[in-house]
Amino acid sequence: MGELVTFGETMLRLSPPRGQRLETEGGLDARVGGAESNVAAAAASLGTQAVWLSKLPENALGRRAVRSLRSHGVRPEVAWDDSETARLGTYYLEYGAEPRGTDVIYDRAGASVTTVRPEELDFTVFETASVFHTTGITPALSEAAAETTLELLRAAGEANVTRSFDLNYRSKLWSTSEARESYESVLEHVDLLFAPIRDVRAVLDQEGDAESVAYRLADDYDIETVVVTRGESGSVAYTDGEICEQDVINAETIDAIGTGDAFVGGVLAELIAGSDIETALSYGAAAASLKRTVEGDVLVTTREEVEDALDQSTGGISR
Amino acid sequence: MGELVTFGETMLRLSPPRGQRLETEGGLDARVGGAESNVAAAAASLGTQAVWLSKLPENALGRRAVRSLRSHGVRPEVAWDDSETARLGTYYLEYGAEPRGTDVIYDRAGASVTTVRPEELDFTVFETASVFHTTGITPALSEAAAETTLELLRAAGEANVTRSFDLNYRSKLWSTSEARESYESVLEHVDLLFAPIRDVRAVLDQEGDAESVAYRLADDYDIETVVVTRGESGSVAYTDGEICEQDVINAETIDAIGTGDAFVGGVLAELIAGSDIETALSYGAAAASLKRTVEGDVLVTTREEVEDALDQSTGGISR
Amino acid sequence: MGELVTFGETMLRLSPPRGQRLETEGGLDARVGGAESNVAAAAASLGTQAVWLSKLPENALGRRAVRSLRSHGVRPEVAWDDSETARLGTYYLEYGAEPRGTDVIYDRAGASVTTVRPEELDFTVFETASVFHTTGITPALSEAAAETTLELLRAAGEANVTRSFDLNYRSKLWSTSEARESYESVLEHVDLLFAPIRDVRAVLDQEGDAESVAYRLADDYDIETVVVTRGESGSVAYTDGEICEQDVINAETIDAIGTGDAFVGGVLAELIAGSDIETALSYGAAAASLKRTVEGDVLVTTREEVEDALDQSTGGISR
Amino acid sequence: MGELVTFGETMLRLSPPRGQRLETEGGLDARVGGAESNVAAAAASLGTQAVWLSKLPENALGRRAVRSLRSHGVRPEVAWDDSETARLGTYYLEYGAEPRGTDVIYDRAGASVTTVRPEELDFTVFETASVFHTTGITPALSEAAAETTLELLRAAGEANVTRSFDLNYRSKLWSTSEARESYESVLEHVDLLFAPIRDVRAVLDQEGDAESVAYRLADDYDIETVVVTRGESGSVAYTDGEICEQDVINAETIDAIGTGDAFVGGVLAELIAGSDIETALSYGAAAASLKRTVEGDVLVTTREEVEDALDQSTGGISR
Amino acid sequence: MGELVTFGETMLRLSPPRGQRLETEGGLDARVGGAESNVAAAAASLGTQAVWLSKLPENALGRRAVRSLRSHGVRPEVAWDDSETARLGTYYLEYGAEPRGTDVIYDRAGASVTTVRPEELDFTVFETASVFHTTGITPALSEAAAETTLELLRAAGEANVTRSFDLNYRSKLWSTSEARESYESVLEHVDLLFAPIRDVRAVLDQEGDAESVAYRLADDYDIETVVVTRGESGSVAYTDGEICEQDVINAETIDAIGTGDAFVGGVLAELIAGSDIETALSYGAAAASLKRTVEGDVLVTTREEVEDALDQSTGGISR
Amino acid sequence: MGELVTFGETMLRLSPPRGQRLETEGGLDARVGGAESNVAAAAASLGTQAVWLSKLPENALGRRAVRSLRSHGVRPEVAWDDSETARLGTYYLEYGAEPRGTDVIYDRAGASVTTVRPEELDFTVFETASVFHTTGITPALSEAAAETTLELLRAAGEANVTRSFDLNYRSKLWSTSEARESYESVLEHVDLLFAPIRDVRAVLDQEGDAESVAYRLADDYDIETVVVTRGESGSVAYTDGEICEQDVINAETIDAIGTGDAFVGGVLAELIAGSDIETALSYGAAAASLKRTVEGDVLVTTREEVEDALDQSTGGISR
Repeated sequence: MGELVTFGETMLRLSPPRGQRLETEGGLDARVGGAESNVAAAAASLGTQAVWLSKLPENALGRRAVRSLRSHGVRPEVAWDDSETARLGTYYLEYGAEPRGTDVIYDRAGASVTTVRPEELDFTVFETASVFHTTGITPALSEAAAETTLELLRAAGEANVTRSFDLNYRSKLWSTSEARESYESVLEHVDLLFAPIRDVRAVLDQEGDAESVAYRLADDYDIETVVVTRGESGSVAYTDGEICEQDVINAETIDAIGTGDAFVGGVLAELIAGSDIETALSYGAAAASLKRTVEGDVLVTTREEVEDALDQSTGGISR
Repeated sequence: MGELVTFGETMLRLSPPRGQRLETEGGLDARVGGAESNVAAAAASLGTQAVWLSKLPENALGRRAVRSLRSHGVRPEVAWDDSETARLGTYYLEYGAEPRGTDVIYDRAGASVTTVRPEELDFTVFETASVFHTTGITPALSEAAAETTLELLRAAGEANVTRSFDLNYRSKLWSTSEARESYESVLEHVDLLFAPIRDVRAVLDQEGDAESVAYRLADDYDIETVVVTRGESGSVAYTDGEICEQDVINAETIDAIGTGDAFVGGVLAELIAGSDIETALSYGAAAASLKRTVEGDVLVTTREEVEDALDQSTGGISR
Repeated sequence: MGELVTFGETMLRLSPPRGQRLETEGGLDARVGGAESNVAAAAASLGTQAVWLSKLPENALGRRAVRSLRSHGVRPEVAWDDSETARLGTYYLEYGAEPRGTDVIYDRAGASVTTVRPEELDFTVFETASVFHTTGITPALSEAAAETTLELLRAAGEANVTRSFDLNYRSKLWSTSEARESYESVLEHVDLLFAPIRDVRAVLDQEGDAESVAYRLADDYDIETVVVTRGESGSVAYTDGEICEQDVINAETIDAIGTGDAFVGGVLAELIAGSDIETALSYGAAAASLKRTVEGDVLVTTREEVEDALDQSTGGISR
Repeated sequence: MGELVTFGETMLRLSPPRGQRLETEGGLDARVGGAESNVAAAAASLGTQAVWLSKLPENALGRRAVRSLRSHGVRPEVAWDDSETARLGTYYLEYGAEPRGTDVIYDRAGASVTTVRPEELDFTVFETASVFHTTGITPALSEAAAETTLELLRAAGEANVTRSFDLNYRSKLWSTSEARESYESVLEHVDLLFAPIRDVRAVLDQEGDAESVAYRLADDYDIETVVVTRGESGSVAYTDGEICEQDVINAETIDAIGTGDAFVGGVLAELIAGSDIETALSYGAAAASLKRTVEGDVLVTTREEVEDALDQSTGGISR
Repeated sequence: MGELVTFGETMLRLSPPRGQRLETEGGLDARVGGAESNVAAAAASLGTQAVWLSKLPENALGRRAVRSLRSHGVRPEVAWDDSETARLGTYYLEYGAEPRGTDVIYDRAGASVTTVRPEELDFTVFETASVFHTTGITPALSEAAAETTLELLRAAGEANVTRSFDLNYRSKLWSTSEARESYESVLEHVDLLFAPIRDVRAVLDQEGDAESVAYRLADDYDIETVVVTRGESGSVAYTDGEICEQDVINAETIDAIGTGDAFVGGVLAELIAGSDIETALSYGAAAASLKRTVEGDVLVTTREEVEDALDQSTGGISR
Repeated sequence: MGELVTFGETMLRLSPPRGQRLETEGGLDARVGGAESNVAAAAASLGTQAVWLSKLPENALGRRAVRSLRSHGVRPEVAWDDSETARLGTYYLEYGAEPRGTDVIYDRAGASVTTVRPEELDFTVFETASVFHTTGITPALSEAAAETTLELLRAAGEANVTRSFDLNYRSKLWSTSEARESYESVLEHVDLLFAPIRDVRAVLDQEGDAESVAYRLADDYDIETVVVTRGESGSVAYTDGEICEQDVINAETIDAIGTGDAFVGGVLAELIAGSDIETALSYGAAAASLKRTVEGDVLVTTREEVEDALDQSTGGISR
């Protein structure tokens, strides 16, 4: 059973208590989170050996990110930025109750990870890796991050490591046309694609239901497995000519941030553990539902708890 | 676009965390709130220049009230009480879950504001004011407060400032007959009345639905505009022979205190901005719904957020 | 109106904030709770003179238990354990949101109370007692605790004190067969039995609905009054050939722990105050519903609040 | 060994965290404290049976005072004020660091205790009492409180209960001439006087060192034992023609409020336990030093801890 | 008595609790601070009308800065940055105990204020201003900020507003040679200079004691008044051929950040109030000592408290 | 550069805030700590690869210990206890101010680690280890722990791993004669001994100063290097016929717990890094002084910070 290697940015997340506004005085909850490290942590909590590649400022904030990920069982292999401009990206999260939504302010421009170069990272991790995962956020960060993403995908491919990619379109980082161009270059190196249907429609201009989208993406880009996610409507996977579906498992939401990452982490952990895509989707759904019950970007759970959640859900797996 | 001037008491509000009882040990959340200053703050968050007249103890608690209101963008113009008996009124708020209700203990007797005299206040604020607002709480505080209320209404009238009044009947402060007598003397000086239908029935003995109540109040007391509020059933305004209605905009309630004040603040801000009563009611409804999502007596928001809430509500305005 | 005497263990309860996991860093809320002391405290809040018998370590943690119970109006009469192995049992409570449940980790083995001997306790409390109450948890703690339980029941019987017992089966403490054997020896000394229907089925192997179970238990063990509780379906009491029923009173749940104890405390307080079982059940239901709105094992309320809850519930009492 | 009965006001004490100002936003620490209840609690922690007489508002705040005192092992015997004007006095405490001092804002006017009448209190407590204690704060609260103080002193005298009084002059409550007049009427009923030398000089116009002051007070007012306290310079007791002295025991100060009350509580506890005044003074000094290490008005300790503090202090007792 | 106008950056300051490390998990205290706004706030607390000019991101963080300054009594007149790159600078403060020092991590590059242009600011503030103050931090932020600083100084000069400048050299922002060049261009527009002797030596290469430095700076740059500050050794002012000195007033340090700004704020407030430089220095020293007792960058005080601190200091003013 | 392997217990440490008593209500700070894991964490913060061997309950509390150690950079290699009696030891820490000391209540009896067997641990860690460290606490826990300690020492010896041992006598765990017997059997397997002089005197009955004690221990037990620690008087090392001394480096104490472990961790880290004992002692002293400035058992620092502390200390190294 090989390792999961992920690559991307992680940020300091700052949020006022629920019911308080960011603009009024008071302390802030501070946590560490980022799409790819969230995936690594979720998989690690399910028993996967997980590694996270990135670049961090060589200061207390960079060490904070490392400490946090280690506590989640992830092995960070990071390049340290000791330049004068080194910084950890931050984001401010303000929980909203109806009729105002939860609001995010990004303050991530110029973070150390945007200067990452392939030669700064440890490519030997692929020797023991089973899956490499990154998302569409990373190439959106900077040209350097985009190039490094491609280098890593290439190297992973050469090492016969399964390459996993989540579109994760962020409109605050780039336009749909920029994203599309980048996706086109990335997708040819991808074996397993996680595609939020919203992103497929916005960026890749594809219409149709989840099943047809999954089929078309697999076909167009020659991707072995495509998982299309539809928020509250669950997910659909296409692989090897077959479609399988997974409902969402109900959860009381304490913190919705990171739900999608927990889903991906659950799927990857289970695939690495040797299960088929259908079983993997169900673990992903359980991981996603559990994430909602935990404060912070990161799922904290155990394999046993995930399986309990699966058992309790009434036949969440359907075809 | 002129200023909004309000007059009334503001208190220190002390509350244990949700699920804790006031009678058990532990720290208390401490905030500043009062009907008229809440209105001023809500309007200020929508862009209105707002002034608050009052009398405060010349000590750290009085300064706390001033600091809090300034942070909300309100300009306090207060008389300072340096007497030995100077005090800031307080109230204790204990959140309740079904089957016990949220409970309030007032400890406001003898607060500095109860000794306020007209000559202590700065009447020049009316020179730049567009609307003067106070509520039925203020004359209930003391004879001095009642007289000062009347003086301010008279002066506002002479300065051609629109006089706004919210009945805001508080049974813990006076009897319905005392309130009625006071209302009678006040209402002849009022141009815009906010009348909770519950108070109209309890104090002014009027029956009938909101529309007829609005019409009758306008007629009886020769008031230009009457807004009758009906809690969950929304509000109705009568002006110039016309009736318009506004539904409540759904909200997840974090803290219900101050919802009515936010409504009034929203309506006044929009009227001052030049809108008609129908539009103003809708801003009031959005402000009220947003208030419910924020801890404390006071709405913290922006005009943009209010307009987003309006856009999302499905046709909240009806006729 | 005599006193209520209870006997059992009380523990330190440690819990992370909601949405946090016990396995991640951060402070813990710390409270004191135990079935029999919870009952005593609930009854005390309703006006009953309540005494709690137990054995505690002679250290700051033992004193903490005493201080907490005194604050709830209970008079602790405890044996102090100054041995080297003295300890206060603890339990860890992690609130869960769907799909994961609230989780409890007990760390109570070898607590001082497990070494309690009859001669260490003050049996003179029965001179002024009206009711003695303990639960099936106590004999499960240790042989010494079981023997002391029996001695206390015998002494209470000799003093004409009503003996109340709650089955309270805890599968983490003993097997159903061990429990059954113990129950058989206890029940002959019981005048008033609280029997969760789940426990009756699991341990006493009785089938049938609540009414028939109540009748059969009263008959089999010659118990004057049997109250069968059915969770969300309310309770049923059999006494003197008559059955009465009580619905659950709706509540918004802040903390469900201790709901059953509050029910028993409410029933006992009202019986001691001289009411009939039907009225007592209704007070129990109101106490239970109020408990749900309060953080911690222990109901903090007043008789007035309980009666308000009863008044608001729509005809909760039926026959 | 008889009981200690005390009589006086207790208040809710509200304080911002150290380094924060009362005038800026943020939660407040909330505790219960008052001179005479502090004395009762300190004595109770040393093993004395202690009773506290007072009048409290019949609401959650009054219950909070009762709960707090019970947790300290004190038995409150209070009259409940269910009038509309019932209130618990409050005081705001802001810790100061050099060059600004710790600041107190009293908000205690009109508290329920100011309306207390002798007939509302339970005079049967004197039947089992050994010592009755009150302070100069109580007669300063109101005429009713002053009269009740005198009635209690008279009744205690008739019951052969030792009457203890602490001058405790508070310049914010009355003038020195008012205080002097009151003291004159009180002191004829006093057997044991605690006299801060600062108060003796300010109010009773006596000059000279502690020894001569103690002698003179005992002589002038025919008081059996006079303890003169001198802050950092320790205390001096005169009784039966003899003088004994006690140094202050060094302490790191966390919270200085209540130090004097802990001293009195320690002295009274030890006198009630049968020790001579010299030993009692040493327990008082140890209790006072321990109080400084504990947050809040009230000493939380054990007899063992007090004795440890005594043992560690290097010969604190001198002659 | 005219207004004080200041210009500069304000940041969000994030700090873990004392004894905690920034690199370990946990919430962060969040406050707003910046040299020039600190000066404005300190002066405002002493009664000065204070205005703060700056540029802020048009989001919740920018509004937070405005709210905070308003609560301190400062009137912010800011340009709002609604660009995609708008950001509020942040800094992380970790309190250290010996042998490790308090540590600061700046994350302020690219803050909105670095893009400020003269035409974005309201130069009409000089019409009612008495003093304009900025510091050497502002021109170090960016070329745009440096140019705007010069424009403001020129405009202030033309409006006969006293121009005050604090060298405030920050080695993390620029080299000593860059700073020197900038200072040279600024100093010709300065009437009142605050010069930390450390900065004078490091940047302006001047040797000698404070007195001679003050004299030389006044002479070299034709500055009316030069105040040289020497940390624990107090300050020296040269004006009009005369030297006066001011000792430091002792304080227990809770938070040392902002001490220098409070000093400047105190001096400016008193100069604006009409006092001579000697008196002004003493107010500055008292303000500085009080700042040390308050958490946060900003002095929260009153004129009365400052005067009390002055009275208590033993003859702090010398010649 | 090989790894550091340590073996021992780690506990959950629960403590009320400073100035609060454990016996009064309120939340508890919760941290993880234990002598040997503290040493591992301190060494890891200095750059050593550190492994911790132990046995933990297979529940959230065991996982909490693992997560905490991972965050400190330690690799836990633990046996998981899934038995019914599995538990994590706890200890309660109450900070004291003079005249009362800091107090500890252990609740560690029967912790999972007391059942550890050699065959449950991964002895392959010695293949890459440079130093193995444990303390006198571990054999005191249980016979099984004592046997496992000896087995590990033997195996380490066979693998040519330096065996380090800290006497760490705990009077609450065993008598001096029990400890002595155990030490005798352990010391023959030890290459590097840390010997608090207090323990040497109490348990090993040796008199004389630190130098002679160090020499004698080395001689008696044939130990290569003996470090005798003397609290505030610094440490002395004897190795290879030479003595070197190290003063304590001054620190402001926030939390003294774990100071000795940080010292050992610093020494071991530096020895593993290839330094001589003299240099290693100085790193130990710096690590110990930094520990005092950080809340919790565990030193959180960096090599750079340790070296800064060394540079600032005035010639702490002497001969």
